[in-house]
Amino acid sequence: MSKTHVAGIGLTPFGAHEGRSGRDLFAEAGLAALNDANVHPNAVEEVYYGNFIGELAEGQGHQGPLMADAIGVTAPTRRLEGACASSGLAVRDAVRAIESGQTDVAIVGGMERLTNMSTTAVTSGLATAADAAYEGRAGITFPGAYALMANAYFNQYGGSRTDLAHIAVKNHANATTNPHAHFPRSITIDEALNAPMVASPLGLYDACPISDGAAALVLTSERYAESRSLETPVAITGSGAGSDRLALQDRSSITYTPATEEAATDAYDAAGIDPKDIDFAEVHDCFTIAEVLALESLGLAERGNGIRHARDGVTTPDGRIPVNLSGGLKAKGHPVGATGAAQVAAVTGLLSGSHPNASKVPDATVGIAHNAGGTVASATVHVLEVIK
Amino acid sequence: MSKTHVAGIGLTPFGAHEGRSGRDLFAEAGLAALNDANVHPNAVEEVYYGNFIGELAEGQGHQGPLMADAIGVTAPTRRLEGACASSGLAVRDAVRAIESGQTDVAIVGGMERLTNMSTTAVTSGLATAADAAYEGRAGITFPGAYALMANAYFNQYGGSRTDLAHIAVKNHANATTNPHAHFPRSITIDEALNAPMVASPLGLYDACPISDGAAALVLTSERYAESRSLETPVAITGSGAGSDRLALQDRSSITYTPATEEAATDAYDAAGIDPKDIDFAEVHDCFTIAEVLALESLGLAERGNGIRHARDGVTTPDGRIPVNLSGGLKAKGHPVGATGAAQVAAVTGLLSGSHPNASKVPDATVGIAHNAGGTVASATVHVLEVIK
Repeated sequence: MSKTHVAGIGLTPFGAHEGRSGRDLFAEAGLAALNDANVHPNAVEEVYYGNFIGELAEGQGHQGPLMADAIGVTAPTRRLEGACASSGLAVRDAVRAIESGQTDVAIVGGMERLTNMSTTAVTSGLATAADAAYEGRAGITFPGAYALMANAYFNQYGGSRTDLAHIAVKNHANATTNPHAHFPRSITIDEALNAPMVASPLGLYDACPISDGAAALVLTSERYAESRSLETPVAITGSGAGSDRLALQDRSSITYTPATEEAATDAYDAAGIDPKDIDFAEVHDCFTIAEVLALESLGLAERGNGIRHARDGVTTPDGRIPVNLSGGLKAKGHPVGATGAAQVAAVTGLLSGSHPNASKVPDATVGIAHNAGGTVASATVHVLEVIK
Repeated sequence: MSKTHVAGIGLTPFGAHEGRSGRDLFAEAGLAALNDANVHPNAVEEVYYGNFIGELAEGQGHQGPLMADAIGVTAPTRRLEGACASSGLAVRDAVRAIESGQTDVAIVGGMERLTNMSTTAVTSGLATAADAAYEGRAGITFPGAYALMANAYFNQYGGSRTDLAHIAVKNHANATTNPHAHFPRSITIDEALNAPMVASPLGLYDACPISDGAAALVLTSERYAESRSLETPVAITGSGAGSDRLALQDRSSITYTPATEEAATDAYDAAGIDPKDIDFAEVHDCFTIAEVLALESLGLAERGNGIRHARDGVTTPDGRIPVNLSGGLKAKGHPVGATGAAQVAAVTGLLSGSHPNASKVPDATVGIAHNAGGTVASATVHVLEVIK
């Protein structure tokens, strides 16, 4: 299998982009990625685009051709949707096409426009990622679903709201030096613990924000990167995906996420690495408890032990394995369809040195990006490595 | 490249399925396909699922894991969306994964639930396939968009409402012997011409219906089919996709659909065929004029000449190249996300002999399936051949 080179990355700031359309946001990210790669739009052979609820947010489906056109590309497009894992899935399918030799140059990315919706509309829109008949009908939304998982985790393994607060504090601290972050400001443990309760035990600072934004990557084959002398110091060397039953009630455990484990196993095997080889990780922390579940399913913490990692300094920038150096979904923001691609962009920048927080992992050579949809019914993991 | 074997097909009837959920519909089609293939759910390695507006229709996004679970499959899933080409795109990406050797067994399919929506909701929902900012805001819906294309075609090449009526009459006649069809009854030219006008020059019988339904395919590698001694008389030997600017206003011509031509060129090249080798075609006739545009872009009619093909008997069952023997979207129905996969299922059955209309093409060895999204901003073409 040929490596998949990350030839260019592009991001909008994440946050509330009042008055801007999704097309406008993706154009900014996509053109930035093409420019970063020094690749002409005409060279793009396939477009893999992630979006979750564009029909609800902007009355806009069929965004593949729209977004391709917005960056001057006329190539086959598809929108991939797997809730919050939409652009992680886009990355995976693009990597598969490139690894197989079918495609040399792909634009991969995603966008979500959410802050133009009412609070009620965005909450119910995001809730379409759950099982509408059995979870939605019972009134569950995602803070409630993750609160169930957090309570079950506390019951099974122990842990406290203070443990979770350390995750929020860590990720906010990391975001302070990321100019693309939605909330680039630090918070304290006390602020986290005293914030309004959203769904017990999860308070306001246990939840990621509702963000607008877009992210894009130019992915190329090794052959293409070399033939064009592109500067591609980072490659995706492993890609995996996993799936689980959609509704929490249908699973044998809600304190573990096998879809992530399956994705990680496939990605690590493809890259020929073990969890101990990983220098840092961007993981899907839509809620603080989600970071804990991710660490354990990714093999970065023992089961029942991930809850302590932020508090014990294992996942802080000076720890054994820094997690969410970008600020994570928690503080960088979570424009749903953009998140998976943005994580790969962050890992790329942290490895290549272009990310503002790259100085925190100066010797890193292996990073991973973990993206999840719903209560981890969909998951993708990508291993990125320095290749020069 | 390895051929992609069609090991099994499954369909629900197309029509109004009052009281049934999308999950229920896909389960019926998916389990039928697995049963037809004699493949166990555990053998499935990837799920490629098409759906257009599930969030609007049933409040259900993230349908990949939901539909996989409904048929007992736990494998990586993704929803593909390209408006009415959603499951054509699903077929294409599955074929690419199988051709490359990455995947041996995939479930591919799609579903749409529409008749539970109000007429207003479904019309505006389907309109999200157009450019919301520039077409939708101007009030355009798809009957209007295709009416613009029909008028432009008439102005450029000639043709009449009677020519279009012959397409509707042909497709309705074909549907009379298809038990899965939404409208399995014949109509006359006079009925078509005297039906209520929808968007001039397109009347009621120029438009496909709003249908519910699901379709599924089990696609396998040659290696897998042979190792399991599966009966797979038909294979997909060519696959292509094309893309165009989303809005009609942005195109240099609205009487021709280059996305289809691009998809066809790629598919024919891969299969090593010319248009003259094609024995019959299932094409995307969401409106009668769309069948005309498809024939011309697929190389099955000269530009400006496709309008006469039904009237002249070229595309009737006894003609040179029968088109839409299943009844087409026009009379078989158009459950949007299911359509592309259903077309491939129809071509498979027509070639293998299992389709009720297979006796009309007894010596056929090559058929194609053409799926389009929006006003053909997305298109896929698949070539299927008898392989024994």
